[in-house]
Amino acid sequence: MARIVMKFGGTSVAGTERIRRVANIVRAQAAAKNGERNSVAVVVSAMAGETDRLVNFCREANALYDPAEYDVVVSSGEQVTAGLLALTLQSMGCKARSWLGWQLPLKTFSAHANARVGEIHAERLLESMDAGEIAIIPGFQGISDEDRITTMGRGGSDTSAVAIAAAIGADRCDIYTDVDGVYTTDPRIVARARKIKHIAFEEMLELASVGAKVLQTRSVSLAMKHNVPVQVLSSFIEDSSPSADTLPGTMIVSEAEMAKLLEEGQVERQSVTGIAHDKNEARVVLTRVPDKPGAVADIFTPLGDAGINVDMIIQNVGRDKGETDVTFTVPQAELARAQALLEDRQEKLGFNRLITDSKVAKISVVGMGMKSHAGVAAMMFQSLADRGINVQAISTSEIKVSVLIDEDETELAVRVLHTAYGLDAPEEV
Amino acid sequence: MARIVMKFGGTSVAGTERIRRVANIVRAQAAAKNGERNSVAVVVSAMAGETDRLVNFCREANALYDPAEYDVVVSSGEQVTAGLLALTLQSMGCKARSWLGWQLPLKTFSAHANARVGEIHAERLLESMDAGEIAIIPGFQGISDEDRITTMGRGGSDTSAVAIAAAIGADRCDIYTDVDGVYTTDPRIVARARKIKHIAFEEMLELASVGAKVLQTRSVSLAMKHNVPVQVLSSFIEDSSPSADTLPGTMIVSEAEMAKLLEEGQVERQSVTGIAHDKNEARVVLTRVPDKPGAVADIFTPLGDAGINVDMIIQNVGRDKGETDVTFTVPQAELARAQALLEDRQEKLGFNRLITDSKVAKISVVGMGMKSHAGVAAMMFQSLADRGINVQAISTSEIKVSVLIDEDETELAVRVLHTAYGLDAPEEV
Repeated sequence: MARIVMKFGGTSVAGTERIRRVANIVRAQAAAKNGERNSVAVVVSAMAGETDRLVNFCREANALYDPAEYDVVVSSGEQVTAGLLALTLQSMGCKARSWLGWQLPLKTFSAHANARVGEIHAERLLESMDAGEIAIIPGFQGISDEDRITTMGRGGSDTSAVAIAAAIGADRCDIYTDVDGVYTTDPRIVARARKIKHIAFEEMLELASVGAKVLQTRSVSLAMKHNVPVQVLSSFIEDSSPSADTLPGTMIVSEAEMAKLLEEGQVERQSVTGIAHDKNEARVVLTRVPDKPGAVADIFTPLGDAGINVDMIIQNVGRDKGETDVTFTVPQAELARAQALLEDRQEKLGFNRLITDSKVAKISVVGMGMKSHAGVAAMMFQSLADRGINVQAISTSEIKVSVLIDEDETELAVRVLHTAYGLDAPEEV
Repeated sequence: MARIVMKFGGTSVAGTERIRRVANIVRAQAAAKNGERNSVAVVVSAMAGETDRLVNFCREANALYDPAEYDVVVSSGEQVTAGLLALTLQSMGCKARSWLGWQLPLKTFSAHANARVGEIHAERLLESMDAGEIAIIPGFQGISDEDRITTMGRGGSDTSAVAIAAAIGADRCDIYTDVDGVYTTDPRIVARARKIKHIAFEEMLELASVGAKVLQTRSVSLAMKHNVPVQVLSSFIEDSSPSADTLPGTMIVSEAEMAKLLEEGQVERQSVTGIAHDKNEARVVLTRVPDKPGAVADIFTPLGDAGINVDMIIQNVGRDKGETDVTFTVPQAELARAQALLEDRQEKLGFNRLITDSKVAKISVVGMGMKSHAGVAAMMFQSLADRGINVQAISTSEIKVSVLIDEDETELAVRVLHTAYGLDAPEEV
């Protein structure tokens, strides 16, 4: 008997018709295969649009809302879906019941409206599941130490699902969404993008944090921490009965598991696994900053203190001796705040001009293979240079190289790199 | 410091604008008067239309729904309103927090979807209220012994409010609704109907059970049991700050309190307090039933076993010796079931024909004064006879006389009786 957690997002449960579709998938997953039934827990989001409706109510009631009461209101969306999915499964002859956050209980800590998963008491849940009852759990919510409802921030249901999977020692956590897996890059940009069959947690984390919006970053790091294999797959597939054997989506697994799959020849050895792009960055240039010890620290310390996340940093030696230009990127949403902070300190920092540019894009190539393949970064710069694409800034990690380019060249750059690293799917005949 | 429970129904909280209006009334009630602040708990319904939306979802999911999951879904409506009212009060500078059924906890027993209030643990609630925090409680819901959400059936929020009031020893339970009190009869029928200032629990119970839809019957009997004074008043009044002193609505109090008010001359001595009508009854006639011992029991026992509530019963001696006609009433909604049950047993019961009539109405006059005034029933029959209205059946209790008449004569009968018992308001000049 395998224990499996399944998670369905808001578009998958938008209305009772779609919930029936989801129930069919769940029933098929729970059904006996080779004489063995699976033990299944299902985590559900609110119906698409419902959370927005509830958040709007809160804003109308109180612009500066108390997050504890906000959580009481918005958590109701998932509660409704959980009850309806249980009812629908029952109508198909399955045993099913809902478990609300306070019933498990699923403890959270730190702030309301952005809580983090703490302890999960899964004894009663497991007992019920192992007795053949499908457990339905509203995502996105738990309870605080004061026994009040908490929510985990938008997209928190992915995290709920992974946390439940870890708590019950699930064999797999399946995240059903509106795409059928993780792709080598955005298929809307590159028609020949390929679905990735296996990817390592570390790679998925890098891809998630640089703009591949399939999974919430926090859920991936939680899965990595507890070593929970996560599968991303579509709830809109034609065949409504995916079996544990076929694994139609993308499996996200540990580095060790990836090494094993490589050894067995089930995964191809590649330097780059995927390419992501992110148009939400903005570039800031401070010209003619005095080239003296502590000058750079004076720039970035106040930004860090204000919680502004600085990503790429380049320091160029300026034309005049004793001065440098400092370039860096911040999220576009933080640009105005960053600019105000720096202009307030212009005298102290001693820069000449502050230039900003929001029309930039960050392109990242990600892959565990970089650790063993040399020349990955060089190939990136060369491929872009060959097409006349100017690199404005660079940042790297052990398994990632990111470059900043003109926003207008985003699609071209992604296509060029996708081909250069051999990621293009074979052309259809 | 007075402790007051306030309850607002679905139309009073339909949307954030109306919730703001409610918050104004609550703030005024909680505000200090003569240097003393009131300790306030507020019970809220779901926004008008919301419960219907959720019930429909349940029906679509599963026609024969599991009441435990139904309760998970439908209870979310009140939860949302509770959070929003707390947020709105906070935006006005009041301290407020929501208390869900499982947080108090408010224990219920017997069936899901139609639960009855059991124990309420109000220690933490009282502590918070007495510290000046306004408590907001979603009506209609509690938890079972298995720690699952229960609901109390439509209109259950009135019962929640009275139960909370009893548990915290409230001085008064104010039920805010879309009418401004209990009237001597339906003002849509009799323009000169008067608002009743004080009415006894027993009278209100009789009026509620015969079709005056202001309060849920169960809430009135609970108030009577725990001697909680209940006030019915409108949340749509112009003056949004009713004070405890003016009491703009109808007070429902104990018989002892009524006697005291009579003594003090604050209440007029009357034989009849109110007149109700009910068009939801249906008449059944069984002709030529054998006039032998046990024949009547054979008719009514199966109906009782099937949960069909028989109200008025008359047995006429038929034309032929040894036979009688039996006439009785059942709720229209039960008529088809009652008819099928009896026709199945025609041979055993030995009746000749079964005749039904849904075009009937029950008119009831209610008043504690009947206990001391003679001739109340006689005046009713005479007044109706004077206008040529035929009485088809009669039933009485200690403080009520009901007659069954042709439905078309409902309005005429109510007007005639309202005048006959001296209930008409003085004509406006």
